[in-house]
Amino acid sequence: MDLTKKIRTIPNFPKEGIMFKDITTLLQDAPAFRKAIDDLVEYFMKKDLHFDKVVSTEARGFILGSVLAYEFHAGFVPLRKPGKLPSETIKQEFKTEYSTDAFEIHKDAIEKGESVLVCDDLIATAGTLRASIDLVEKLGGKVNGIACLVELTFLKGRDKIKGYDICSLIKYDKEE
Amino acid sequence: MDLTKKIRTIPNFPKEGIMFKDITTLLQDAPAFRKAIDDLVEYFMKKDLHFDKVVSTEARGFILGSVLAYEFHAGFVPLRKPGKLPSETIKQEFKTEYSTDAFEIHKDAIEKGESVLVCDDLIATAGTLRASIDLVEKLGGKVNGIACLVELTFLKGRDKIKGYDICSLIKYDKEE
Repeated sequence: MDLTKKIRTIPNFPKEGIMFKDITTLLQDAPAFRKAIDDLVEYFMKKDLHFDKVVSTEARGFILGSVLAYEFHAGFVPLRKPGKLPSETIKQEFKTEYSTDAFEIHKDAIEKGESVLVCDDLIATAGTLRASIDLVEKLGGKVNGIACLVELTFLKGRDKIKGYDICSLIKYDKEE
Repeated sequence: MDLTKKIRTIPNFPKEGIMFKDITTLLQDAPAFRKAIDDLVEYFMKKDLHFDKVVSTEARGFILGSVLAYEFHAGFVPLRKPGKLPSETIKQEFKTEYSTDAFEIHKDAIEKGESVLVCDDLIATAGTLRASIDLVEKLGGKVNGIACLVELTFLKGRDKIKGYDICSLIKYDKEE
């Protein structure tokens, strides 16, 4: 099955000039959704990696991250927009493809030395992923893997997250 | 394992007088997260129910809903705040415990006659769940189950969603 064919491109969303990669067509296709998860799990399983926590940003990141947490017998840690997490947090600002924003993590979400998988739906400029990694590391966690569904390689997001073990399933090498 | 003990209550969040049920302490606890998912799956498996789609609202609903979709070999359908879904949608307004809001679903997310599990983290006044059910039924889907982690039974949300097969794992019968 070619997962690329399950992605729908929406021109000019959320703003003029962006070719938005809509993953909902993949998620709602049961065999495609299952294959995406299984491929991500297999990539890290083959390396015999163990994760204590899977960390994802709201909202689309939660969809893949929580399944990976379940499959790896790990805890799931949501990173949320400021003010959404109810207990004590630390915050990290970041730039996205479209704007500047921030995410928070609960201070008690990661214990020192825990092995963490960071998961998001998309690697674009990797601002969100960089912020996620920084939050995990500030709490003393060790990021042993990064899992993504789609990567826009022409935006060179990997330059921001060098040295990490990154698995992305569907790559676009130009705006299309 | 008593899942109730994994929930943290945060007084006066997001506003004065609300005893907020923080599920992040359960999600980040790997065995508790796994047990919650397994208990929800078992409830519907025992009834030999099959689901084509699992539908959840952003953002916390995605965390449980996507794992249930994976486990039931179903597609996952996100309901999102207005303007977030990139293709053609229908919209449903609803009242939450705190405010009035709206959710959208992609028109092509559910096919007529499909068996649907609706999943959310919390049953409070059930405004969100009612809106989710309405969106699924407008597209011709059949809601054959509702799965939730926490239920505030004293808010009598079930009155709004009578006639559906509801499984909630952790019940609070008073504000505490």
